[in-house]
Amino acid sequence: MTGSPVVAVAGATGAVGVELLKCLETRNFPLSKLKLLASKRSAGRTMTFKGEEILVDELTDASLKGVDIALFSAGSSVSKQFRAASKTAGAVMIDNSSAFRMEAGVPLVIPEINPEAAKTHQGVIANPNCAAIIAAVPLAPLHRVNPMARVIASTYQAASGAGWAAMKELEDATRAYLDGRPFAQQVLPHPYAFNLFSHNTRIDPVTGYNDEETKVHDEMRKVLGHAALRISATCIRVPVLRAHCEALTVEFERPMSPDEARAILAKAPGVRIVDDIAANHFPMPNEASEQGDILVGRIRTDVSDPSGKTLCLFVAGDQLLKGAALNAVQIAELLV
Amino acid sequence: MTGSPVVAVAGATGAVGVELLKCLETRNFPLSKLKLLASKRSAGRTMTFKGEEILVDELTDASLKGVDIALFSAGSSVSKQFRAASKTAGAVMIDNSSAFRMEAGVPLVIPEINPEAAKTHQGVIANPNCAAIIAAVPLAPLHRVNPMARVIASTYQAASGAGWAAMKELEDATRAYLDGRPFAQQVLPHPYAFNLFSHNTRIDPVTGYNDEETKVHDEMRKVLGHAALRISATCIRVPVLRAHCEALTVEFERPMSPDEARAILAKAPGVRIVDDIAANHFPMPNEASEQGDILVGRIRTDVSDPSGKTLCLFVAGDQLLKGAALNAVQIAELLV
Repeated sequence: MTGSPVVAVAGATGAVGVELLKCLETRNFPLSKLKLLASKRSAGRTMTFKGEEILVDELTDASLKGVDIALFSAGSSVSKQFRAASKTAGAVMIDNSSAFRMEAGVPLVIPEINPEAAKTHQGVIANPNCAAIIAAVPLAPLHRVNPMARVIASTYQAASGAGWAAMKELEDATRAYLDGRPFAQQVLPHPYAFNLFSHNTRIDPVTGYNDEETKVHDEMRKVLGHAALRISATCIRVPVLRAHCEALTVEFERPMSPDEARAILAKAPGVRIVDDIAANHFPMPNEASEQGDILVGRIRTDVSDPSGKTLCLFVAGDQLLKGAALNAVQIAELLV
Repeated sequence: MTGSPVVAVAGATGAVGVELLKCLETRNFPLSKLKLLASKRSAGRTMTFKGEEILVDELTDASLKGVDIALFSAGSSVSKQFRAASKTAGAVMIDNSSAFRMEAGVPLVIPEINPEAAKTHQGVIANPNCAAIIAAVPLAPLHRVNPMARVIASTYQAASGAGWAAMKELEDATRAYLDGRPFAQQVLPHPYAFNLFSHNTRIDPVTGYNDEETKVHDEMRKVLGHAALRISATCIRVPVLRAHCEALTVEFERPMSPDEARAILAKAPGVRIVDDIAANHFPMPNEASEQGDILVGRIRTDVSDPSGKTLCLFVAGDQLLKGAALNAVQIAELLV
């Protein structure tokens, strides 16, 4: 791609779409034109980009004409629907949905980890699942030094993973709870005020894993290029607005000390160590929110593995930024 | 102990104290007299038991005279201070604090698991840590059939573990957040509104584990009588009011299928299986609250251990009831 591309954001009015605009602006992405696209329902609104009001157009095949980079964040079915039109337009689709992530020939990219994969695209580059990104960014640099054999992840996932409506539902449900008013949830299947629940994706009746957990499993393997990685996730939605946390137990092929891990992580791009034992200060959603790094702390040798090969970590990352919009814009930066 | 004992509740006005009264009432505990004791600051208030107003007296050495069973829930230092007076009074102290749990000669009892240990007491019986109880109740019956080799636990702990004041702080902080007002936390060290953080107990600078995690480690071993159990916990406080959840990865000595585990758990006392894949309905704090069972679900073979020896489970239990007051009253029932 030469010169400044025409960039489209499809799903511009969604929770991730808004962050895509912010990332393009704050990172001063070298675009010649920005097209904002959304469903018919959201079209006609305007959004501000670099002080300019831009009209949101309806996403149609024709709307993609002339686009060089199409950042899609409008769900799997929309991505599938517009894949052909994006290709016809000559655009590279950077897709935030799960539609094409595991498809052979579609690179699944985290720029800190496998930027070279982006070059192999055939019109679509997939942005990984947020829980996979937030675990992979700190684990990849450790894996490069000492390959991982096994990962056990328990997630603490924010409402933002289910979009604006879920974030609003968490706030509304909580306010109702505090006021002693009844509240009927409509977006998520369970009460969310001061409550948590297993991720509400379909569960494979054979394995017992839900789709979110399977995404973490499959996508970690693909992004790390480690098809034999043994990995198990338990994905839980907690009453937090926009940053995910994960408790990670990671077995390496050889012993790895916390100090060795800290030294590697201190130099790792996109990672910030927050591991202050004296102050009891570790990664938290409120500090992970609205910034791009994955926070890593509670770095310690797993006392349940006497071989010294296993570390425990606790990580936090902004689900809307590094878990979605920021990673997508970083992928776009690889193309220009 | 013969006849109906005189029972004292020390720390009666605290979050656990209130639940102790409720448990004694709803379980119709056969007591001849109930004494309510608390700090000087809380003495003079009255509390209702079986429709009767009872004056809260100040906890002093003299106040324990004539008491047969003293249910202590006023913190470790208070338990230590009154241990001798309780012994002099001839009372059995059932202590909810961590003061004596790991002391040789002090039984650490979960009535569903090791009721026989209660008989060996020398004046003090310890009630385990809430996170240990909530994991142990469902794991012990599995362990009895197929010994556990290793447990990895990630907790989702409620505010109630830090008492009334923390529960109120969570509500107040959340209301302030929703109203856009600043809020300065005073009980817990980090903002709690829509936030979570590593358990705020002291961290061992050598191991990197915090005291809550060490309690889970040590107490699970003692309660299960399994000194070689390899166990690692990551303890996290989540913005939930009064029920803890835990994601458990459990390796057994031999393969254990989810169906075998379900059959064992279906008959286990104090356990209720909530594992409805079709309805995406699993253990949640709101359904675990204000009832005595530990809810267990997400029962599946850990895909990261091809031997089939490892299961994943997600559990939830009321921190104030089975995690504290209910277990203590059940211990008292073993004495009468």
